[in-house]
Amino acid sequence: MTVDHLAIAVHRLSEAVPRWEQQLGAAASPPEEVPSQRVRAVFLDVDNTHLEFLEPTSEDSPIARFLAQRGEGMHHIAFAVPSVDRKLAELASAGVRLIDTVSRPGARGRQVGFCHPSAFGGVLVEFVEARP
Amino acid sequence: MTVDHLAIAVHRLSEAVPRWEQQLGAAASPPEEVPSQRVRAVFLDVDNTHLEFLEPTSEDSPIARFLAQRGEGMHHIAFAVPSVDRKLAELASAGVRLIDTVSRPGARGRQVGFCHPSAFGGVLVEFVEARP
Repeated sequence: MTVDHLAIAVHRLSEAVPRWEQQLGAAASPPEEVPSQRVRAVFLDVDNTHLEFLEPTSEDSPIARFLAQRGEGMHHIAFAVPSVDRKLAELASAGVRLIDTVSRPGARGRQVGFCHPSAFGGVLVEFVEARP
Repeated sequence: MTVDHLAIAVHRLSEAVPRWEQQLGAAASPPEEVPSQRVRAVFLDVDNTHLEFLEPTSEDSPIARFLAQRGEGMHHIAFAVPSVDRKLAELASAGVRLIDTVSRPGARGRQVGFCHPSAFGGVLVEFVEARP
């Protein structure tokens, strides 16, 4: 099991990301729109994983709701798996509560699926298709 | 820059950790007491990094305060650096707000230092001495 990325919710990518780039000495990717989650995402590569910064693109985005309730901060952790659908099915059959029972398109052209935060004691966990 | 670990605050290690072990298919280390932070820590190894689970050992532990305010969830992200003191000095001279201006003993016999959450837009960032 590999941590694919750690996601951080921010109000504005243009304000948040340069600070991380400068203080960590790492460079971020160009922003990408992810319509299924109503966010704009930027990835910052560190040596062993990625940080994903998420800015809402609409007021009903899950990230807009998160920011309104909790402010900027860590939003979810994503693990890479060979098949998201298989992982979700395995968890569902073990009685684990899920947000997505089948995968959907995420950032970087990869399928993703989210567990309910109660499934991992308050931590929002995403599974994302491993790179081929 | 490498993500050394992602830390998760929990009420009880004995309740939280087995769920993560089972759902991720990974095994956790024995608990370790970290007196400087008034916590008990368990590390769960994934392929490219570690998850750290933190349970408070006293009511004035920073983790006890976090749990009272926000409940269980992601607490901080730790990056490995060759010298924590050098990294803290570099950030301080760039005007970055810190909790620790010099390193202190952390889990696993390694020196650590924390930045103020405002330094990374609401995310608590730790620097930890890279393994030799």
